[in-house]
Amino acid sequence: MTYERENIKRMEGYTSGEQPDSPDIIKLNTNENPFPPGPAVAQALAGISVNDLRRYPQPTASHLRDCLAIYHQLGPTSGPDNIIVTKGGDELLRLAISTFVEEAESIAVAAPGYSLYDVLATAHGCSIQKFDLDNHWKLPENFASKLNQSGAKICFVVNPHAPSGQLCSVAELRQLANDFQGVLFIDEAYVDFVDPEIGYDSTPLINEFDNVLILRTFSKGFSLAGLRIAYGLGAQSLIDPMQYKTKDSYNTDFIAQTLATAAIENYQCAAETWSYVRNQRDYLKNQLDKIGFISNPSQSNFLLVTVPAPFEAENIYQSLKQKGILIRYFNLPRLQDKLRISIGTEAENNILITILKEIIS
Amino acid sequence: MTYERENIKRMEGYTSGEQPDSPDIIKLNTNENPFPPGPAVAQALAGISVNDLRRYPQPTASHLRDCLAIYHQLGPTSGPDNIIVTKGGDELLRLAISTFVEEAESIAVAAPGYSLYDVLATAHGCSIQKFDLDNHWKLPENFASKLNQSGAKICFVVNPHAPSGQLCSVAELRQLANDFQGVLFIDEAYVDFVDPEIGYDSTPLINEFDNVLILRTFSKGFSLAGLRIAYGLGAQSLIDPMQYKTKDSYNTDFIAQTLATAAIENYQCAAETWSYVRNQRDYLKNQLDKIGFISNPSQSNFLLVTVPAPFEAENIYQSLKQKGILIRYFNLPRLQDKLRISIGTEAENNILITILKEIIS
Repeated sequence: MTYERENIKRMEGYTSGEQPDSPDIIKLNTNENPFPPGPAVAQALAGISVNDLRRYPQPTASHLRDCLAIYHQLGPTSGPDNIIVTKGGDELLRLAISTFVEEAESIAVAAPGYSLYDVLATAHGCSIQKFDLDNHWKLPENFASKLNQSGAKICFVVNPHAPSGQLCSVAELRQLANDFQGVLFIDEAYVDFVDPEIGYDSTPLINEFDNVLILRTFSKGFSLAGLRIAYGLGAQSLIDPMQYKTKDSYNTDFIAQTLATAAIENYQCAAETWSYVRNQRDYLKNQLDKIGFISNPSQSNFLLVTVPAPFEAENIYQSLKQKGILIRYFNLPRLQDKLRISIGTEAENNILITILKEIIS
Repeated sequence: MTYERENIKRMEGYTSGEQPDSPDIIKLNTNENPFPPGPAVAQALAGISVNDLRRYPQPTASHLRDCLAIYHQLGPTSGPDNIIVTKGGDELLRLAISTFVEEAESIAVAAPGYSLYDVLATAHGCSIQKFDLDNHWKLPENFASKLNQSGAKICFVVNPHAPSGQLCSVAELRQLANDFQGVLFIDEAYVDFVDPEIGYDSTPLINEFDNVLILRTFSKGFSLAGLRIAYGLGAQSLIDPMQYKTKDSYNTDFIAQTLATAAIENYQCAAETWSYVRNQRDYLKNQLDKIGFISNPSQSNFLLVTVPAPFEAENIYQSLKQKGILIRYFNLPRLQDKLRISIGTEAENNILITILKEIIS
């Protein structure tokens, strides 16, 4: 017999990107930073003793929150109380849904997007409404009024968008936060790779609105995907119920708190990798353009490439996999002729280009 | 304005035990192991490089599950697929509720018990039914039929029980699993401290029944509370929906998986601390008996002590705290004249006795 809830029985789980054990694979499929964390993080790791692990960790990662408040220059009206630290971004996505959405209600997402939203909604028991991005991967016209008509309690906007790499401006987000009656959840998993000349910074919105929740993660920009640590920024009225009621009581561990603190205190080191990735993004886009694999201009650490006829995206993905290069193919509407390629090191990107040329020649 | 769900708005969060920063505090309030993890865990920690943290971890901790299957001698009809690794025991408690209990349904617990169950039920939106333990802290008479009448979907039994330290036999659990129509969740957070001469081992129940879920944790017996790692054992029909549908996609990190593997492969080292704790449990019980602080025989790493008149438990707790010793006082029915004291090192236990004598003299 099965004891599952009805919605769980019916649902399918999330399929994460392949995580091969072999270090020889060129792994350009799940948007990790191509470089390891810097020396300050290594030093923090070396400084941890097993004695530190015997006792429970600080339940709300308060020291890390203090550092994050400084990093984001919060204040004078906001600070550490506007931050919740979570076990990866996934935890914050789940917490937002389970804290703010009743089963009879719905969440909204722009499509196509991160398939985990579907899984989280179904697991919670609420419904999900999808609004198609326009032809340039921009938010739909009159998005706020469409959202308000739908009655969605949370709207998730991934910015820069995945898998397109398209960036929505702070002005657009401000207008959306102002007009939308629910919680605007801005998922900034890839924000560290945005060109700094654009001057994108959405964090002031948490002081202007009580319905803006911003997700940041250490997984991509800070090269700590293996550690599972992320955080949310928002009005205290949004943060408090998750911080003190719905998150697991000790949701992040001592080591993750310690290493994330070292990473943020020495963010300049990670910032060098962001600059490298941006340069390689331009280089790779250019190289791919030359062989007819055209991509959307990306502000993230990946490119969404259209595979030119007569080639088929899924075949290219399979051929690259056979040669030891993993990239991402999504069998979803509007993405079936496309591939998402994470930006690797210069050497990895060159191998990708070389092998891709072999495959299509 | 507030965006919280109605049940979240009304609820109060969980109050965890105090986690002071100062290493000088004698901390006997949250049942940590008094000794750090052993040399194999230290070696595993030293062997981790920041390079290992750049990529995502294995999503279901498969190597650790393989080791756990060997440790528990699962097989031939059970194995790693009968195990889910979670971010501390809290995560498994939450997953069980969110996977198996509809909002309109209920969970059942024996009272008094772990206050987190109330919080988890309210956060999920289901109700909680409490059944009083008898005068000897044993499960209520005709428990299964009471549970079946209540319609509870999950019954949580903490074994050994907290805060009493009382152990329920495998025979009793087997009968309960057989008679109860819902999921029997056996929370074995403290099981490592059970006297091995008793021969307690509930794991065969997962082969006999499809409704038994057992929680084990590395927090207490393996001295890894700061790392947040635990696991569940059960029929695959119970494990699969949590493993592949409701848990966060990468719920445990690379370091926790690696250190827990080292801990379990070298469990003999932890087992030495369990033996030490049992000896000190006898010693401390004896010393406390002598000054009139009588305790229930405990199979756990704590004692539930009755404070003799005219002293008041809360005052004793406060006086000890002023002297730098933290223990646990619960302002709950049947516990108001009692204190829960974690077993410390011999030195810590002696200081506790000395200061307690001073306080009552």
